[in-house]
Amino acid sequence: MPTMTERVNALLAELLGGSCPAVLFDAMRHAVLVGGKRIRPQLCMAAAEAVGGRMEDALYPACAIELLHSYTLVHDDLPAMDNDAVRRGAPSVWAKYGEANAILAGDALQALAFRTAVRAPRNAERIAAAIAEAGVGVVQGQVADLAGGDADFILRHKTADLFVAAAEMGALAGGGNDDDVARLREYALSIGIAFQLEDDLLDGDSPNPAGDARRAIDELTAAAVAALDGLPGDVAPLVAMAERLAERKS
Amino acid sequence: MPTMTERVNALLAELLGGSCPAVLFDAMRHAVLVGGKRIRPQLCMAAAEAVGGRMEDALYPACAIELLHSYTLVHDDLPAMDNDAVRRGAPSVWAKYGEANAILAGDALQALAFRTAVRAPRNAERIAAAIAEAGVGVVQGQVADLAGGDADFILRHKTADLFVAAAEMGALAGGGNDDDVARLREYALSIGIAFQLEDDLLDGDSPNPAGDARRAIDELTAAAVAALDGLPGDVAPLVAMAERLAERKS
Repeated sequence: MPTMTERVNALLAELLGGSCPAVLFDAMRHAVLVGGKRIRPQLCMAAAEAVGGRMEDALYPACAIELLHSYTLVHDDLPAMDNDAVRRGAPSVWAKYGEANAILAGDALQALAFRTAVRAPRNAERIAAAIAEAGVGVVQGQVADLAGGDADFILRHKTADLFVAAAEMGALAGGGNDDDVARLREYALSIGIAFQLEDDLLDGDSPNPAGDARRAIDELTAAAVAALDGLPGDVAPLVAMAERLAERKS
Repeated sequence: MPTMTERVNALLAELLGGSCPAVLFDAMRHAVLVGGKRIRPQLCMAAAEAVGGRMEDALYPACAIELLHSYTLVHDDLPAMDNDAVRRGAPSVWAKYGEANAILAGDALQALAFRTAVRAPRNAERIAAAIAEAGVGVVQGQVADLAGGDADFILRHKTADLFVAAAEMGALAGGGNDDDVARLREYALSIGIAFQLEDDLLDGDSPNPAGDARRAIDELTAAAVAALDGLPGDVAPLVAMAERLAERKS
């Protein structure tokens, strides 16, 4: 039996199976299929389980959020942005396929993300709204980051918006009610902010003393776990995910 | 009474009313609200009328397709793409707000387009699927154009995909059935290809002798009008639009 992450990877490969023009789909596949820990898809599918649904029901939304995440990385790496020629140990998309193709591959990945979200087997309309909302929010966070804006705003939007959308889409795909959705959004907001604080610590560019950041991460992780209280399904995978993310080393 | 185009412009201004971060929304407003003939929104609303629905029902999809179209222009103008510093007699978005902000403003416009499409009062799920499909197709056309690909493929996707989606979304928002949708897609495909041929003629970079292109435009316009046969609503605005586009001077 393939694991759920293997099923996500298989569906991503299928969704990216186009060939016309070849360079576009090659660039899109390079962006999505070379590496990636699939944290957001796992969150999405675990949210479906936490509301008592089946992980399978969240497969399309799970792939959609990974496509959206991937497009943001492709555009972040561009020379006009972070100017990163390497991503996950391989050439970044622009370094391999040129700037114009990287801009366009990112654009197509965003469209494909929405196309994929709409394929959810239930609540597709609300799921589409959630991912589109996150699509705007993540750019707000990125622009605020480039402009040296408010640190809380950046934390809230740059990373956490995609976590929140992943959890909300999973809850909706799993058939959760509005209370379930609210609980899972709260969980995801906390682990999303903790994830970014952890990233800053690992990169050595935390704006806070390391001790302060570590304390904030622990408090957010506890708050995330507390938010799961009252959900009807199995929350153990989400508890484990919150703890794993708080302790990660890369 | 405001005209429908005035209502589109008012709704676009409302949808783009955000302010955080200011530079992002300023850039997005500049991209959408400075000029633009609103051809695609008019097509979308006229399609709703052609199936016997109300133009008002297609207001959100009409704005959505204009937001999508606007993002493609923002990205097309980038230095790595067409390197155009001027658009509609004003500085292009990158020339005014910088390259990074232009990439990100385009990204946010695409997300906002999907967010707006999902707000259609009926058939939102199919409408979301149609615009996302077009979002992928338009990039395929653009990459093929940059790579010097097949001329028919470029014509089909680079321009016509957005026309087809505009018509399909309007038909769905107006409550049309599958036959109505098919007729309006056929109409839009023909005028979309004619529109691009006309563009190439006006720009003086038609790959065909002018007489051949003119003949093709006339044939496509006639085919478009013929495709409207059998629709239950008022098709006069679509007939007029097909003729107006075939004879435009800019």
